[in-house]
Order: sequence, then C-alpha cells, then structure tokens
Amino acid sequence: MSTDTSTPDVRPTDHTGLRVLSIDECLERLDRTAVGRIAFVLDGEVTVLPVVHTRDGVDVCFRTTGSSKVGAAVDHDRVAYQVDGFDARTRTGWSVLVQGTAVLVTQEADVRRLDLGSARSWVPQHEHGYQWIRVRTASITGRALG
Amino acid sequence: MSTDTSTPDVRPTDHTGLRVLSIDECLERLDRTAVGRIAFVLDGEVTVLPVVHTRDGVDVCFRTTGSSKVGAAVDHDRVAYQVDGFDARTRTGWSVLVQGTAVLVTQEADVRRLDLGSARSWVPQHEHGYQWIRVRTASITGRALG
Repeated sequence: MSTDTSTPDVRPTDHTGLRVLSIDECLERLDRTAVGRIAFVLDGEVTVLPVVHTRDGVDVCFRTTGSSKVGAAVDHDRVAYQVDGFDARTRTGWSVLVQGTAVLVTQEADVRRLDLGSARSWVPQHEHGYQWIRVRTASITGRALG
Repeated sequence: MSTDTSTPDVRPTDHTGLRVLSIDECLERLDRTAVGRIAFVLDGEVTVLPVVHTRDGVDVCFRTTGSSKVGAAVDHDRVAYQVDGFDARTRTGWSVLVQGTAVLVTQEADVRRLDLGSARSWVPQHEHGYQWIRVRTASITGRALG
C-alpha cells in the first residue's frame, strides 16, 4: 500500500478506478464477515462453496466434513477464499480475496484453539466428524467501490 | 433430484443435510441477486471477482473491461459463477453454483440484447470499452440451509 501520498485523502486505486484496500482493511473485513467462499479446482471443474470462517493470523480456517468436496482439494492445489459486501441501492461494495494453499489442520493444539476461538458451524452435522482446513495465505488483496 | 418422495413436504437433501434446490429455484435466485462472483484459474492461481450479472437463458453474462483478469480466462478454461444469500441472525442461507466455460460475446445482436436487458455496470469506467462475457452453463446446482 502506497504511503507516499501527499494528502491523507488520496487513496490508491487500480486501473478500473476501484479503491485498493490495505492488508489491515482486508483482515478487518474478514473478521466482521461471517460467511465467505472457498474456491478450488476439483477434477478440472472450478467449484465455489460458502463456509463460515475464522481467521488465524493471516490464514483463514473453516470446518468441513471428511466427505466434502473441499476435503478433496486439500494438499494438492491452489485455492482462493473470498468475502464481500454489497449495497444494491447505493451500488457500492467491496471484496477481499485470499489466495493460497489448503492444508488439513492436524495438530491437536491447533484444532482445540480453532474450536475455542471460532463461531459454531451453521450446519449441525458438521459439529461431529468435521475437520479444520487452513488456507495458508500467499496473498491478500481487496478492492472497494464507492 | 429425487422424485420418489412419499409426501410433498419431503425435499431432497444432500449428505450434509442441506436442501437441494431445483434448477428453477436456482435460476430464480440468480435473477433476484444483483451481484455474483466469477471464479477462474489464471496462471495457476484461483481467482474470485464480484460482478453484476444478467441471465440469458441458462447462461450468465457480465461485462468486463478488455484489460481485466477475467478476460484472460476466456476461451481457455473452465469457470464457475456463484451467487448466495445469508442471514447471520437466523444462521440460514443458500448458494447457487453455475459451472461452465467463459466465452466472449462477439455477435453484435447478442451484445445489443444484453445491453438492453441488463442492469448498468456498477463501475462507471466499464460503460466504455467493456466486453460481454458469457458463462456457457454446463451445470447449475444449489443448496439451502434452514
């Protein structure tokens, strides 16, 4: 994020005129958004599924059942995690994109910490037999419109 | 979609207990949702970007500038388009996923029809120099929770 702006009001924008969010702004929006979307490639098909996430440092973690499609994407491919918010009336909005690799959380201490620190899954069945998946973040980017 | 249910109240659910939406329900939710997300792979990275869409039959179309990342994904890869809606208070929600291939809309008649039938882009710059991209739908699936 550029810090060489001459006035506090000048904010960086991309080539389409969208305001570039700082990493802190991206993390703050991840924190205040309950549901995001995990996107991954499975058998050559791009798949996007909503999940309830919890942030762990710059990583994003979420629960999944062992039999879920997301589980199949772990450890063998790049993934993305996305959160956004929109107001159709004012035609404004923002989007944050996390890109990285999905790994299974296997350390018991990590699982316990995630269990304690996170919101309950919205899908009751996931309370039993779920696994935590971590998106090991390689990049976080965000844009805002309006 | 299971059709061998014994009462009209029994609705098909998937292995996680989510209600399976019919194709008509999926299309109806696409229609009443202004913003969705296009997901694609570019240089090995999964990317997810929000856009304002318009439905054209079972396909989903949206505008993009020629220089956008989405443009680079056209004609060479599978893509997904996703819309959803959530209520954090009641912990309910739904998601619709369109999977297919992205193609550039090149026929002038198609461009005119899409221009006339669609909502204005939210990004002012896109009014000039934009292109229409069509997600040629291979499958539409949807799930609802609660």
